[in-house]
Amino acid sequence: MKYVRFRDPAGAVRRGEYESGHVHFANESYALADDAIDVLPPCEPSKVVCVGRNYAAHADEMGSDLPDRPLLFLKPPNSVAGHGDTVTAPAGKDRIDYEAELGIVIGRQCRHVPEADAMDVVEGFTCVDDVTNRDDQEEEVNWIRAKAFDGSAPIGPVLATPDEVPDDAAVRSRVNGTVKQDGSLEQLIFSIPELIAEITTYLTLEPGDVIATGTPEGVGPLEDGDRVEIDVEGIGTLEHSIRIP
Amino acid sequence: MKYVRFRDPAGAVRRGEYESGHVHFANESYALADDAIDVLPPCEPSKVVCVGRNYAAHADEMGSDLPDRPLLFLKPPNSVAGHGDTVTAPAGKDRIDYEAELGIVIGRQCRHVPEADAMDVVEGFTCVDDVTNRDDQEEEVNWIRAKAFDGSAPIGPVLATPDEVPDDAAVRSRVNGTVKQDGSLEQLIFSIPELIAEITTYLTLEPGDVIATGTPEGVGPLEDGDRVEIDVEGIGTLEHSIRIP
Repeated sequence: MKYVRFRDPAGAVRRGEYESGHVHFANESYALADDAIDVLPPCEPSKVVCVGRNYAAHADEMGSDLPDRPLLFLKPPNSVAGHGDTVTAPAGKDRIDYEAELGIVIGRQCRHVPEADAMDVVEGFTCVDDVTNRDDQEEEVNWIRAKAFDGSAPIGPVLATPDEVPDDAAVRSRVNGTVKQDGSLEQLIFSIPELIAEITTYLTLEPGDVIATGTPEGVGPLEDGDRVEIDVEGIGTLEHSIRIP
Repeated sequence: MKYVRFRDPAGAVRRGEYESGHVHFANESYALADDAIDVLPPCEPSKVVCVGRNYAAHADEMGSDLPDRPLLFLKPPNSVAGHGDTVTAPAGKDRIDYEAELGIVIGRQCRHVPEADAMDVVEGFTCVDDVTNRDDQEEEVNWIRAKAFDGSAPIGPVLATPDEVPDDAAVRSRVNGTVKQDGSLEQLIFSIPELIAEITTYLTLEPGDVIATGTPEGVGPLEDGDRVEIDVEGIGTLEHSIRIP
């Protein structure tokens, strides 16, 4: 099953079933691209828990060592943006990057989840762009200016149940139509159950929280006005544009 | 004015006026220590934006350089605890520290706030303990296991309007009644308006969000069962205990 959250022409927030480019709720049906609806982020995270350096080739391209346990960081609710939105980067920065990622959407409140039970707390998967301000990432101890700014976590539009997403799903980004990243979930250093077990050793996850599982190699800079697409096989395509003031 | 949020004997959540150890709402009045009420955190932050190394003597005791702009990190909603609560540290850690701090409670949604207007977005002040797991702080890139674990941000119990808090208010911690930290807001490297201006250059702050302004010198380890008091002059005393499994 696939779902899309949206605001209908009457202003009501709905979660409809998604199929072949259309979203259905009760007796109504809309094309995803229909201007009469506003596509919303698929969930309302109290936090996005992000994982860094979870693909070996990406750690290598960043000149970073592989971590011996997941490198974690946080994006707060102000970072969430949705499909079709324009993300405005902080002003005066030289390098703003896209980072395509699989997002795990949590289905129920949980802590201390063993790896064997981890899939029980997963509602589904979505696409994430971990938009990054590299200028500040290199200068600050915690990546707040770098990765927690408003709009730095476009997510959506589809929430797909786990059965929809193959174990070796492709994780891709395109900028203005040109493929930039083309990885696979098989390349994850820490698996989805390992991430959920490690994170919930320390933190309670809430329904709607998102875990961004890390980005494959091929990150690079965006220009003002670029159109970014994040595409995870079995889920669909998240599209947003970027404004770099 | 001073306020305390609490759950009354009927289970209703109230914000009452606080005076001389008692909280008043409508025709009812309760002692803060009355078992008939549950004292709640004074607000419900979507995020706690924390500031590191904002007192020179504390940066020195940690062997850290002074930052040339505020060192920021985040605590998510799962980190919030309240007055009278027992915080359970992550298991198997050798050193869990108290850190007394002044917390700024934001009163309205804001971004790009100039220093001159910063006090307009402040609803008031409260006490914060930035409970820290030093084992992981020294090992991870972003301080998630170290400072974002469940219960790592006890706040409250009083929200005091800015006029109640002197510019040189004492910021103190006590452990089992013994004074451990005794600093002053005059020692802040980055002032309250400077912090609000810098943070809102990147992030939108929401009503109820908290900025934890950093801790003075004198941090140190807690033992299982210790009772921590955080005392900011003009506000009151936050008390919690710690369980170290």
